[in-house]
Amino acid sequence: MSVTVVGSIAFDAVKTPFGERERMLGGSAVHFALAASFFDEVRVVGPVGEDFGEPELAVLRERGVSTDDVEAVPGGRTFFWRGVYGWDLNDRETLDTQLGVFAEFEPRLSDASRDCDVLFLANIQPDLQRQVRAQCRRARFAALDSMNLWIETARDSLVAAIGEVDCLILNDAELRQLTGEPNLVRAARRIREWGPGVVVAKQGEYGAAMITEEGFFALPAYPLETVVDPTGAGDSFAGGLVGYVAAHPDEPLSHELLCQAMAYGTALASFNVEEFGVERVARLRAEEVSERVVELGRMTAFSALPLG
Amino acid sequence: MSVTVVGSIAFDAVKTPFGERERMLGGSAVHFALAASFFDEVRVVGPVGEDFGEPELAVLRERGVSTDDVEAVPGGRTFFWRGVYGWDLNDRETLDTQLGVFAEFEPRLSDASRDCDVLFLANIQPDLQRQVRAQCRRARFAALDSMNLWIETARDSLVAAIGEVDCLILNDAELRQLTGEPNLVRAARRIREWGPGVVVAKQGEYGAAMITEEGFFALPAYPLETVVDPTGAGDSFAGGLVGYVAAHPDEPLSHELLCQAMAYGTALASFNVEEFGVERVARLRAEEVSERVVELGRMTAFSALPLG
Repeated sequence: MSVTVVGSIAFDAVKTPFGERERMLGGSAVHFALAASFFDEVRVVGPVGEDFGEPELAVLRERGVSTDDVEAVPGGRTFFWRGVYGWDLNDRETLDTQLGVFAEFEPRLSDASRDCDVLFLANIQPDLQRQVRAQCRRARFAALDSMNLWIETARDSLVAAIGEVDCLILNDAELRQLTGEPNLVRAARRIREWGPGVVVAKQGEYGAAMITEEGFFALPAYPLETVVDPTGAGDSFAGGLVGYVAAHPDEPLSHELLCQAMAYGTALASFNVEEFGVERVARLRAEEVSERVVELGRMTAFSALPLG
Repeated sequence: MSVTVVGSIAFDAVKTPFGERERMLGGSAVHFALAASFFDEVRVVGPVGEDFGEPELAVLRERGVSTDDVEAVPGGRTFFWRGVYGWDLNDRETLDTQLGVFAEFEPRLSDASRDCDVLFLANIQPDLQRQVRAQCRRARFAALDSMNLWIETARDSLVAAIGEVDCLILNDAELRQLTGEPNLVRAARRIREWGPGVVVAKQGEYGAAMITEEGFFALPAYPLETVVDPTGAGDSFAGGLVGYVAAHPDEPLSHELLCQAMAYGTALASFNVEEFGVERVARLRAEEVSERVVELGRMTAFSALPLG
């Protein structure tokens, strides 16, 4: 069994109150793949430029991620993003985005990537997401992320793409924007009418909530004293969640399994933000992930004793 | 055993996307008292004007709340607040505040109110909170709420008042403002250095988080399809939490007990927002509260299975 992810592979320049990095490995597919690598074989699909080299690929390969479908475009430049975070880390400002090789990207998947058991369509143009979805017909679970840009510029295509997956994973502000519903329960119901049985709202420092046919589930973010760099937290969360599903091919895709997957996503996201870029997750150990999941269980458990 | 609460007793004019009320019973002490009335005997301390009548007192008395220390000021006008909520109910605008009898309020507690086992200092001027705290020397648990106005205009007095209680219950934005710490874990540590062993951050639609000596606990808000009027949600939450503590005088004030109390606070807050003002909580039944707490338990439970 394996997970295929399509999304951005990038260089990021990030400044936060805790420091800055001028050019570090990033991108939604990279953050997702490193997180999901704790659970299953992962294949990354996406383009890079000539400026992307062995040291960057090695970070993925050391975690066992297949880079066979990372397409090096001759003469091209790797996707570049520059952003700065303010005092409370909730608001970030994008200072520069250079699409580079992404401007002309047409996903061509190898047979191995097409044959994936689980598929994650990270945040890229929704028509590209649909092209990939159409190539991976055997996936038993497909999830999708997106962003405000596509809600504003390619809404119809995005709604169509959402209709072709099992799970939408989106920031809660974007869920509101997409559905016009300020209320999460109503927004999720609307999305579920479009197709996906599972809707996950990423709520940043407040954690994440999930709505399935069986009901509502929510977890807080794992509490940290210092959040160094939130970049990629959402993709690490998705990597933990989707990876956990991939690691359980013989179990039915139940609400209960997805709740456990939410906990793994939450744990992975918390490690991601402890250092810049992929620095922390690249050297993370599986035992550390499990420990944090157990801690999360303690931090949310209570005895529901009835009154009187 | 009993709970004493000091805070505002008010008439509220509220407009939300779901309707409006021109003049309804409200105020922090009222919302708190109705919620706490499910757990223990509650005594309300606070002033009202000549415009406050039997119908309003009856709402409290029907829930068994003692109004003996509700002081009717001859010739006075009851505290009045007018506010409007926008599309997403998270932001509210205050259109009018008339202090009325609160401008000259000096808390005078009856012996019964002074002898309380548990004390809640709802959001009023911190010097008044300190006067009441000083009168209730036997309380084994005292909690305090406040707001941005007092952080801005009476910070030293507020910090002193916080130093005299066991538990601070505050909106998370106000916790940040008060401590200058954007990070909740750090903000709570700062507050705990001032005195209170327990810090609770109210996070609105995202629920609430608590930090004690034993660690972190968090719960999402109970998911609702329709939130009609958020006014008083925070005070209902505090009423559930503090009331639950009051209902367990023979148990040590443990982290575990407080986690259960957080669940009851969350349940009470969710009922409060289902209708305008106190309309829903005034006719609430204890069984409904317990049912929602059990549901909350299901909505946050997962099996923390380690990897591999």
